Amino acid sequence: MNVLIIHAHPEPRSFTTALKDTAVDELSRRGHTVEISDLYAMNFDPVAKGGDFTSRHDPQYLVYALEQRKALASGGLAPDIAAEVEKLRGADLIILSFPMFWFSVPAIMKGWIDRVLLSGLCYGGRRFYDRGGLRGKRMLAAFTLGSRETMFGAQAVHGELEAMLRPLLRGTFYYVGCDVLQPFVAWHVPYISGADRDAFLARYRTRLSGIELEQPIAYPSLDDFDDDMMPLRSSS
Amino acid sequence: MNVLIIHAHPEPRSFTTALKDTAVDELSRRGHTVEISDLYAMNFDPVAKGGDFTSRHDPQYLVYALEQRKALASGGLAPDIAAEVEKLRGADLIILSFPMFWFSVPAIMKGWIDRVLLSGLCYGGRRFYDRGGLRGKRMLAAFTLGSRETMFGAQAVHGELEAMLRPLLRGTFYYVGCDVLQPFVAWHVPYISGADRDAFLARYRTRLSGIELEQPIAYPSLDDFDDDMMPLRSSS
Repeated sequence: MNVLIIHAHPEPRSFTTALKDTAVDELSRRGHTVEISDLYAMNFDPVAKGGDFTSRHDPQYLVYALEQRKALASGGLAPDIAAEVEKLRGADLIILSFPMFWFSVPAIMKGWIDRVLLSGLCYGGRRFYDRGGLRGKRMLAAFTLGSRETMFGAQAVHGELEAMLRPLLRGTFYYVGCDVLQPFVAWHVPYISGADRDAFLARYRTRLSGIELEQPIAYPSLDDFDDDMMPLRSSS
Repeated sequence: MNVLIIHAHPEPRSFTTALKDTAVDELSRRGHTVEISDLYAMNFDPVAKGGDFTSRHDPQYLVYALEQRKALASGGLAPDIAAEVEKLRGADLIILSFPMFWFSVPAIMKGWIDRVLLSGLCYGGRRFYDRGGLRGKRMLAAFTLGSRETMFGAQAVHGELEAMLRPLLRGTFYYVGCDVLQPFVAWHVPYISGADRDAFLARYRTRLSGIELEQPIAYPSLDDFDDDMMPLRSSS
């Protein structure tokens, strides 16, 4: 597989970085090719704006998704976006490596999503979910968080973690057609021992050793909706 | 009320901006004080980083939330953050005004959340949800999106919009103790007529005219959990 790791942590020596390094080591060792976009190291610009296009279809009024489609067709993407798009096109597995900030990705990674997951390439019109443009690629979110695992679950204070991750996993990566894998979560990281951290690294290594065989999360198929996106049959 | 509008759209003449301007007009007309953080106009930096603190508690290793707590106590916040924190402290109602990007806020607004909702001030330890630091403040998300309203709902292709908004509404603004109001949503905006847009503006104006009397969304209370955050009684 070609693996693209999108990594974002403001501290280069963080445990999240150790997870990323473990992924590079294990995946390379198994013969996969690994490419990394280390967003902080790259000083990646997360702000979607008119300047993301080297020439504008409409210089007077910015409709961002429309400019994405036009720039994709004309080769008019800003170089930093074009470089990420090329990595994305070549990837069989996309790993997002990050510390959870506000039950979501850090802003610098949200900006990668906003700017790189282009309309026209990744989705458009009725091309989303299992008809999305990135069909055939797998996606894994691998993240650290401060909370304890016991704070998540049907009866727990925050409810299900998966419910908090819905816009990222279903609303973004399944939206563009990826096979979304169960996230890898390192819990309570700021407060645990070195041994517990090592155990997370070992568990991540084991997980990655068979990642290409995993079953993705089951999400709705567009086959169950008509052309107006109304359900063909009700399911309750 | 003192109202703080956090506004983010890459096109200054967007319909989202018209919504913001409507809010300023209606709220001012009713005697409220309105302050605006127009993140694109301010060229707001969304990236959480070590430089967010004028002096570091630990210059060698960045634990972002810890540095936030120390800098809050010592007056060591970067000026752009300190300015936003002052606006936030004074606000009775916080309005997020944005176009939905990937079922979430644009990266520049996510960065406002990451950098301004300080650990120590807004939350910390067991101070979250109805014990959060911003108790007593109201929060309204007012946003535009491309989808049709019919694409959301229990049987619809994307499921409930509220489920997609969970990390923003519950996981962020209820987390810090805000009374979170039902969002104001302008659907299908890139594709609708001028008359339909005017109807959204009128509806938003009416909504804002009584916003201080609205009942917030009901979320779990920490009173229903013990000191280990385990449920005191199961509810199903």
